[in-house]
Amino acid sequence: MVRMTGTKRAILDAALEIAAERGISGTTMDDVAERAGVAKGSLYYNFASKDKLFEGLLGEGMAALTEVLREARTGVEGWSAIEALVTTLLGSIARNTALAKIIAGDIFRTDRAWREASFTFRHDALAEFEVAITEALPEASAVGASALMASSVFGATLMAGLEWLLFDEERPQAEVVAAVLCTFSGRLVPATH
Amino acid sequence: MVRMTGTKRAILDAALEIAAERGISGTTMDDVAERAGVAKGSLYYNFASKDKLFEGLLGEGMAALTEVLREARTGVEGWSAIEALVTTLLGSIARNTALAKIIAGDIFRTDRAWREASFTFRHDALAEFEVAITEALPEASAVGASALMASSVFGATLMAGLEWLLFDEERPQAEVVAAVLCTFSGRLVPATH
Repeated sequence: MVRMTGTKRAILDAALEIAAERGISGTTMDDVAERAGVAKGSLYYNFASKDKLFEGLLGEGMAALTEVLREARTGVEGWSAIEALVTTLLGSIARNTALAKIIAGDIFRTDRAWREASFTFRHDALAEFEVAITEALPEASAVGASALMASSVFGATLMAGLEWLLFDEERPQAEVVAAVLCTFSGRLVPATH
Repeated sequence: MVRMTGTKRAILDAALEIAAERGISGTTMDDVAERAGVAKGSLYYNFASKDKLFEGLLGEGMAALTEVLREARTGVEGWSAIEALVTTLLGSIARNTALAKIIAGDIFRTDRAWREASFTFRHDALAEFEVAITEALPEASAVGASALMASSVFGATLMAGLEWLLFDEERPQAEVVAAVLCTFSGRLVPATH
């Protein structure tokens, strides 16, 4: 984690809060300065543009996520690693729902100046899932399907997690983990299939 | 499908195009009028506000999606219905990637005037998946997990589909369908599990 000044932290926290409500496009630098309680000069001294600000915010969030995902799958393999990754991703979404909403909302935007950066961040987090999937099912990698399957497991967890936190928050986390993992368990497929 | 005037259609198409590039928050009524080639008076005559405009756009898109999903699962059951739904959803995303990006981006926004409407649209589309999941695995419904599993399957398909269309578009659609379905096939779980 990058060391940062109190001002920088206050700016990032304010930007996160506002963007979770209105999306990145709906967030202005004026709003961020006001919410953070800093002068506009100070805001622009720390982040030269709104794009740089959100590049910093998403970069920090995705790097932290990638780190906890890597820790979660280290020392376990295959299906156990997938279980650990889904559990950890749901925990991260629960701890930082605002960031998860921004990621879900902007992961596929194509107009961003930081599209390249965003691609790298997404790629790094998905790579952790891809490693586990390749261990669990080497044939998937052989036919080039492991990256799509990583997106699939990540997307399933992200969507179920946001559905839980925004519309069904009383449900215990363990039940959400179990429901997502059940989707991948093969129990949806008839035994004769 | 609602019958509509050429002007209304031009406005909705312009709004869709711009929002796919910049998100809903980044789209202004001025932009829409300009892109559609209509006077602002005419724009506001058709849609009283930006919220009404996007409520119309997302409502139309999600109603059409729900209809094709319902057709896809009609007459088939359980896992076959899930296969049909995943295949159909990927086809819909491929045919209307712009709308899929907006849906992915705004499905969890909480500041929208049309949050209620958006909830209904999402709920209707997810309900088609929930019916199939309940048929395939009645216990999921019994423990209240079928709605989360529906979100999970929908989110997996949406994310893998957008990944495909935005970053890997040369890949044949059948391979994407196969990769997403493989995620749910149980092949990730060791046989001894």
